[in-house]
Amino acid sequence: MTRICFLNPFCGDRADSLIEETVSPYLRNGTTVDVWHHKTGPDFPDYYVSKHLTEVEIMRSAVAAERAGYDAFVIGCSYDPGLTQCRELVNIPVVGPLESSTALARSFGHRYSVLTDHHKAVPELEDRLRVYGTSANCRSVRAIDWFGSDMLLDLDAVADDARAKADEVAERDGAEAIIWGCTLIAAAYERAVLQGRPETSQVAIINPNVVAVKVAEMFADMQAVGQYRMSRKSYYQPQSHHDQESADQIAALLGVDPVI
Amino acid sequence: MTRICFLNPFCGDRADSLIEETVSPYLRNGTTVDVWHHKTGPDFPDYYVSKHLTEVEIMRSAVAAERAGYDAFVIGCSYDPGLTQCRELVNIPVVGPLESSTALARSFGHRYSVLTDHHKAVPELEDRLRVYGTSANCRSVRAIDWFGSDMLLDLDAVADDARAKADEVAERDGAEAIIWGCTLIAAAYERAVLQGRPETSQVAIINPNVVAVKVAEMFADMQAVGQYRMSRKSYYQPQSHHDQESADQIAALLGVDPVI
Amino acid sequence: MTRICFLNPFCGDRADSLIEETVSPYLRNGTTVDVWHHKTGPDFPDYYVSKHLTEVEIMRSAVAAERAGYDAFVIGCSYDPGLTQCRELVNIPVVGPLESSTALARSFGHRYSVLTDHHKAVPELEDRLRVYGTSANCRSVRAIDWFGSDMLLDLDAVADDARAKADEVAERDGAEAIIWGCTLIAAAYERAVLQGRPETSQVAIINPNVVAVKVAEMFADMQAVGQYRMSRKSYYQPQSHHDQESADQIAALLGVDPVI
Amino acid sequence: MTRICFLNPFCGDRADSLIEETVSPYLRNGTTVDVWHHKTGPDFPDYYVSKHLTEVEIMRSAVAAERAGYDAFVIGCSYDPGLTQCRELVNIPVVGPLESSTALARSFGHRYSVLTDHHKAVPELEDRLRVYGTSANCRSVRAIDWFGSDMLLDLDAVADDARAKADEVAERDGAEAIIWGCTLIAAAYERAVLQGRPETSQVAIINPNVVAVKVAEMFADMQAVGQYRMSRKSYYQPQSHHDQESADQIAALLGVDPVI
Amino acid sequence: MTRICFLNPFCGDRADSLIEETVSPYLRNGTTVDVWHHKTGPDFPDYYVSKHLTEVEIMRSAVAAERAGYDAFVIGCSYDPGLTQCRELVNIPVVGPLESSTALARSFGHRYSVLTDHHKAVPELEDRLRVYGTSANCRSVRAIDWFGSDMLLDLDAVADDARAKADEVAERDGAEAIIWGCTLIAAAYERAVLQGRPETSQVAIINPNVVAVKVAEMFADMQAVGQYRMSRKSYYQPQSHHDQESADQIAALLGVDPVI
Amino acid sequence: MTRICFLNPFCGDRADSLIEETVSPYLRNGTTVDVWHHKTGPDFPDYYVSKHLTEVEIMRSAVAAERAGYDAFVIGCSYDPGLTQCRELVNIPVVGPLESSTALARSFGHRYSVLTDHHKAVPELEDRLRVYGTSANCRSVRAIDWFGSDMLLDLDAVADDARAKADEVAERDGAEAIIWGCTLIAAAYERAVLQGRPETSQVAIINPNVVAVKVAEMFADMQAVGQYRMSRKSYYQPQSHHDQESADQIAALLGVDPVI
Repeated sequence: MTRICFLNPFCGDRADSLIEETVSPYLRNGTTVDVWHHKTGPDFPDYYVSKHLTEVEIMRSAVAAERAGYDAFVIGCSYDPGLTQCRELVNIPVVGPLESSTALARSFGHRYSVLTDHHKAVPELEDRLRVYGTSANCRSVRAIDWFGSDMLLDLDAVADDARAKADEVAERDGAEAIIWGCTLIAAAYERAVLQGRPETSQVAIINPNVVAVKVAEMFADMQAVGQYRMSRKSYYQPQSHHDQESADQIAALLGVDPVI
Repeated sequence: MTRICFLNPFCGDRADSLIEETVSPYLRNGTTVDVWHHKTGPDFPDYYVSKHLTEVEIMRSAVAAERAGYDAFVIGCSYDPGLTQCRELVNIPVVGPLESSTALARSFGHRYSVLTDHHKAVPELEDRLRVYGTSANCRSVRAIDWFGSDMLLDLDAVADDARAKADEVAERDGAEAIIWGCTLIAAAYERAVLQGRPETSQVAIINPNVVAVKVAEMFADMQAVGQYRMSRKSYYQPQSHHDQESADQIAALLGVDPVI
Repeated sequence: MTRICFLNPFCGDRADSLIEETVSPYLRNGTTVDVWHHKTGPDFPDYYVSKHLTEVEIMRSAVAAERAGYDAFVIGCSYDPGLTQCRELVNIPVVGPLESSTALARSFGHRYSVLTDHHKAVPELEDRLRVYGTSANCRSVRAIDWFGSDMLLDLDAVADDARAKADEVAERDGAEAIIWGCTLIAAAYERAVLQGRPETSQVAIINPNVVAVKVAEMFADMQAVGQYRMSRKSYYQPQSHHDQESADQIAALLGVDPVI
Repeated sequence: MTRICFLNPFCGDRADSLIEETVSPYLRNGTTVDVWHHKTGPDFPDYYVSKHLTEVEIMRSAVAAERAGYDAFVIGCSYDPGLTQCRELVNIPVVGPLESSTALARSFGHRYSVLTDHHKAVPELEDRLRVYGTSANCRSVRAIDWFGSDMLLDLDAVADDARAKADEVAERDGAEAIIWGCTLIAAAYERAVLQGRPETSQVAIINPNVVAVKVAEMFADMQAVGQYRMSRKSYYQPQSHHDQESADQIAALLGVDPVI
Repeated sequence: MTRICFLNPFCGDRADSLIEETVSPYLRNGTTVDVWHHKTGPDFPDYYVSKHLTEVEIMRSAVAAERAGYDAFVIGCSYDPGLTQCRELVNIPVVGPLESSTALARSFGHRYSVLTDHHKAVPELEDRLRVYGTSANCRSVRAIDWFGSDMLLDLDAVADDARAKADEVAERDGAEAIIWGCTLIAAAYERAVLQGRPETSQVAIINPNVVAVKVAEMFADMQAVGQYRMSRKSYYQPQSHHDQESADQIAALLGVDPVI
Repeated sequence: MTRICFLNPFCGDRADSLIEETVSPYLRNGTTVDVWHHKTGPDFPDYYVSKHLTEVEIMRSAVAAERAGYDAFVIGCSYDPGLTQCRELVNIPVVGPLESSTALARSFGHRYSVLTDHHKAVPELEDRLRVYGTSANCRSVRAIDWFGSDMLLDLDAVADDARAKADEVAERDGAEAIIWGCTLIAAAYERAVLQGRPETSQVAIINPNVVAVKVAEMFADMQAVGQYRMSRKSYYQPQSHHDQESADQIAALLGVDPVI
């Protein structure tokens, strides 16, 4: 039995059922996914400031998810907001859709492009790929020019635009696979497919929501048998390993109980 | 129920039980792994010519595994011999230990090194990382200077050497994680750990055998629910998509029944 | 007359006079620097969580500095915490010590290394260089193994350790210039030099505090004459350019008056 | 007197005279080139599996060429199939068209593109450039969409398509030189030029067949005077340097007499 | 009081007033810029040979400027001709428009393109970026196809072409900022703006003449207070540090008095 | 019959016989090499200013060599001084030892290091490799700390130091091949070998003088049969293709008759 917390880092529950219905069909037997959302904080993390404030909420959710006994925590946004912070903060595996799907992309095709929602996301996703070291096989990062709140109002239009743009980008930039660079696009497209709307046959579509959940299942498994032996020496070292007192102060500032 | 074929691309069964005992503890419930070996061909694939002839056997095994109904095929050697060829040849997911473990390494630490068996493997592994696009986070590829047949004679000594060298390499090259660049080292180290010998506490150890098997589980799951949508447009296009007749001739030359 | 706000992103005033005395001698005529600190938030931003919470304070300070009429805002920490967020948030130039000093390093020598405080900073600084696109000329990022609160207790020892390690790193990694990767090291070393302690003669020392302040002077000048024409199309686009209402909400969440 | 074996790694002699007539005019005095082909194995090495089986034949041919006293061995396909394997196997210089022509391209123009036959070749050639370390100056790898057997039926059409596409690619991607990424395209174009059909005047054409043969002449010369001092320490170490017995077994498996 | 020598590395004074009127408005209080030109040597440094001969004149001018007491020396051409040579030769800061503006570009936008005058400049500018280590954030180097002498005859047409092409390049290549890759384009565009002609609102324009002068001001300041501590160990080591006699001979060959 | 001009870009004939005796044994039948030197200009091109003045002489020599009917021109210094300038200026092939030997290095071993004379050369050679696009396979550039005039006084000591350092560098940096990064080291080592002094058996030695001469033979051959089809569109475009009048002026300034 593997329990995964999939956090929609948006304020309010408007995307929860969408995620649930487009992720659930792909779980393996014995896995449950609970979709969480924020009750405070920014509506969406599109801009750097709103993303930053959202990440504060994400850290709190990560701690809460660990406390609640989840086996893994998925950050449901392709910015992977708060990914490194959360890994520092909790012991359960933390998975980001962008990190995991770009890491595994070569199994799906020789080169990939990322297709995200809007122009603000493009430079940030490019920066993330540099940090992850996964830009070598990336042909391009491009956008369909939709913002989050609009997407939720017309999911079919999003799916259609995404499919058309995916074919165009694959052709123009020579990508064999397209990774949706936005969890809402991914969900909208998957929903359309589940409802029988046409899929692209021109390019391999990598659904980062599904990849993230599957990697979460895998890391949870590995954790359970002692094979998710993450280094706690530097990058992911929790502050308490250096100084418990200051770690406690930080936990207090964050508004959580003392953590690892 | 997920059935994985783990192929030891060595002639003879001498490493089969070693792999079985060091991989089985990490399977999830419902997965079975069968360890295969070659009955003809080179003993070991250490050199380019012997690797090449081994890869002919590997392709045959991949087809046989697909015919036998396995859900995924793991090539049990850190050269990932025959990886792209097999993906062209069969429809079940094919996983290589090096590709999968270097792809996922950032979740284990900021930078990694690969520690392989002997000097001949170092340049080849470096070449593979370039092809995979996973060299950005790799600090170094180094060797402990053991060859396959010797390793099987003294697994504890291999484990001890590997552990000592891993600490040294991590310190010298600034790696937070070490990926064993040889499935026999990985198995020898894991066996030692399972038997209670000391583990390193200085560096995160990534066991590529386990990672490969876990990724095989994951891709098999995704395949089963239609989410392993690999591109068949170019890199992994089977010859039959271009020309069935020549594909049949190639299958005949390989000594297998017509394939995809 | 150019007024620069140099923010020490630490809680409390303990480093203020140190910065003031080691930056003031290098101002040009007509520039004043006010050193600010935080009154709430983490003591130091060493870890990812503490850095993240510190960055919330930094954003507030950036807005406050703009409101107070400063011509430029320097973030006084080599992590450049909150750099992109603040650029999104205010119209005055925002300068980070690491970004500016690594950008200009080639004028000081062929290749540079960054010498920072402790092991936790090394991976983060490497990530920053990737994001900035300034890693091509960087030979290495290394640490002297001091934490902030300890450094403030023995500045001369820090200066001595830094000088010795700088010579060692330059020799080992082939760097012609060393950039202090910590504003406290930079200040400690500069203070020692101002007090007549020996300087290294083996390697060019780039003081990122001074570089940041000088670049702040320069960008403030350019801003004043209409030559700091930053693109507000994507990377540095403020949220209000997309949607004023949500921008106001974010400002409210941050606890500042509506901003750009 | 320099004797070069140019192997057409195709089954059957259909391309032999084409190669001979388009390479011979460019030999220096005292060089002879014999064009070989395979009598068994795949027709063409276009796909990974067919390439792999072709490479087995190529290795046998390399050994045979060395036994027959040739001074150098050219693998007549722009995949450079079997290049590293053959270097491990024989002592005479082994030359690949892609490796040699991309290595020397800067003498012909600032940046180059590779123009190959079909979509299946594009990813493989990109991978080869990574392995060779020659991708820095490569603008693009593109295809004219012809397969081998079709090309041989209408060489003039191939030449016309290649010339038109070369101009287009040079313009679009900013390449000053075009390397034919297929020995048959190279031969078809050269044949057309020799027969007086129009050449492009827009871009420098690098004929990899000719470059390979000229480099083979050069390495044969250097070998003769002791200046082709290839390292036999790792990458090109023959198996016999490690273990004669297993090397003999591999030679037997390959179906050749014991080699170096 | 800061005195900057801005050298137009052209033979004759035809561009002097243009530079003066388009740089002067952006000086800070207390800075004077004198615009110099060559009285002998090539008209323009467009080609490699003419650039090389121009660089001889530039070195002489650099020495003359230092002797005349200037605080910094700006080489007024985006090839940055003679940049490293002059740094070896004089002690005052030497600034090149391309090096300084590409180094600082990230403060203006996420990625930049360089827009230069003609096709001959494109490869050279690409080479310079590689040498500087500033190509990571460069999307493209493109040209408007004007030569120097023609530009001086119709500055408004140059400005119009440059503006139009800048918008096009930013759109096509995804750049947020455009750096003029030619000091004459920069001056023509700036002059048009000063005269009230339309500016682009689509992309951030970085004027390398202004950036170079502002960086010269800054380095002159730093030099004055002992903070421009350039390494004289290797890259910028003057010959006299190795051997005074040969340094004197070189100075004599160059036709200048003995220098550093 | 191929006639090659090998220019020692040094003032005076002191290195001429050394080059002649260490290159001649490796010529093919029918090739003659004449070794030239400068009668004016700097003694050695070690520093940027002396290199620059030497390059003026080199350009004159290139034109003189073409006029004298040589088939190719080799610039006998591992800085490849004047390489691009000369290619712009003459029609015969121009070859640099560093460009040609780093381009071909992969045929000699997996990775190479460059071992040059002194500390001043190290950064310049690193810059050249970036410009050439050949740094991907380069492990390091290191020096033995000898200057030109000293080397000529004790060639055996140079050879001994070079051999010892080559072994050390190969071991430390993981290079399989060492390219001498100085034509005098190359000649000194080759002379020692010809005289029977011990060779290294640890690493493949690439002699750039020999490689340059062999590539010159090859390009001369290709030129003779119309296969050295260098692009004259941009990078190597002569000024006369743009404007004959200014090209004539440049030729006059250089002190040569009008050229291409």
